[in-house]
Amino acid sequence: MSVAGTWMWYDEFETGTRTELGTYKFDRNRMIAFAGKFDPQIFHIDEAAAARSHFCGLCASGWHTAAAYMKCCAAYNFAGCDEAQSVGKTLPPLGPSPGFENLRWLKPVYPGDELTFHNEITGKRAMSSRPDWGIVFARNTGINQHGEMVFSFDGKLLVARR
Amino acid sequence: MSVAGTWMWYDEFETGTRTELGTYKFDRNRMIAFAGKFDPQIFHIDEAAAARSHFCGLCASGWHTAAAYMKCCAAYNFAGCDEAQSVGKTLPPLGPSPGFENLRWLKPVYPGDELTFHNEITGKRAMSSRPDWGIVFARNTGINQHGEMVFSFDGKLLVARR
Repeated sequence: MSVAGTWMWYDEFETGTRTELGTYKFDRNRMIAFAGKFDPQIFHIDEAAAARSHFCGLCASGWHTAAAYMKCCAAYNFAGCDEAQSVGKTLPPLGPSPGFENLRWLKPVYPGDELTFHNEITGKRAMSSRPDWGIVFARNTGINQHGEMVFSFDGKLLVARR
Repeated sequence: MSVAGTWMWYDEFETGTRTELGTYKFDRNRMIAFAGKFDPQIFHIDEAAAARSHFCGLCASGWHTAAAYMKCCAAYNFAGCDEAQSVGKTLPPLGPSPGFENLRWLKPVYPGDELTFHNEITGKRAMSSRPDWGIVFARNTGINQHGEMVFSFDGKLLVARR
């Protein structure tokens, strides 16, 4: 996480902070291109067949939605960080993620949908085993243009302490 | 899930069944192309900077690894399924996933790495609220050419009962 191109220390995260990461538009051609490469289920690549499916129309691969989240997250967090920060020479970057939980695709994402992704800090915990690091907990969501939550997961990040 | 192009019923899943889904090679250009679109952190797109990072080299976006899993999963499960099966007109397809847990990227994935993905049925449970459906639990893993597990998650799938 960064603010205005500066890496944040563990100490700077505040529970309850909610950040809008950005918006991604699910263009029909992008959806089919992604799914053709990685998830060629018929309701992701063939509009006519998708219309006859239980989704009632072409919908995005769930992994495309996850990748779109990452695109917005990276654009928000890493814009303006210089290389030294990004590669962890001056400040340690985010450590390896200890993992994601509760990954959910709650509703289909259709062509033309615009998802806005948010990150909310839900908690933090110092690590007794690694006193120079802490764990930051965050809830991540994707909300479409109708205000419906269509995607969510809980992340845990290792972050260096000051 | 399917066997030889036929959708499986809930009743046919057996706890302990382990299936090799396929192998995906992480070509350097594919890695950079994916990350350029969705995850342009410097250690995913710039070899020289990545060499100076804590990863000590260019590594794949975690979402690229997840998408590669899906590619192998789809190729294994949906090859040979006809459209009627795929869109759920003759047999209900897999229902919406109730979610994934314990998503982990355990080690970096480097250019040239080949990940082989497996799926293992870890349990199943009938749904009292929806007697025509059941939940199948599965552990999914990606193992590199050195035998190291680099990726894993636990999935829950809604599957129709016979």
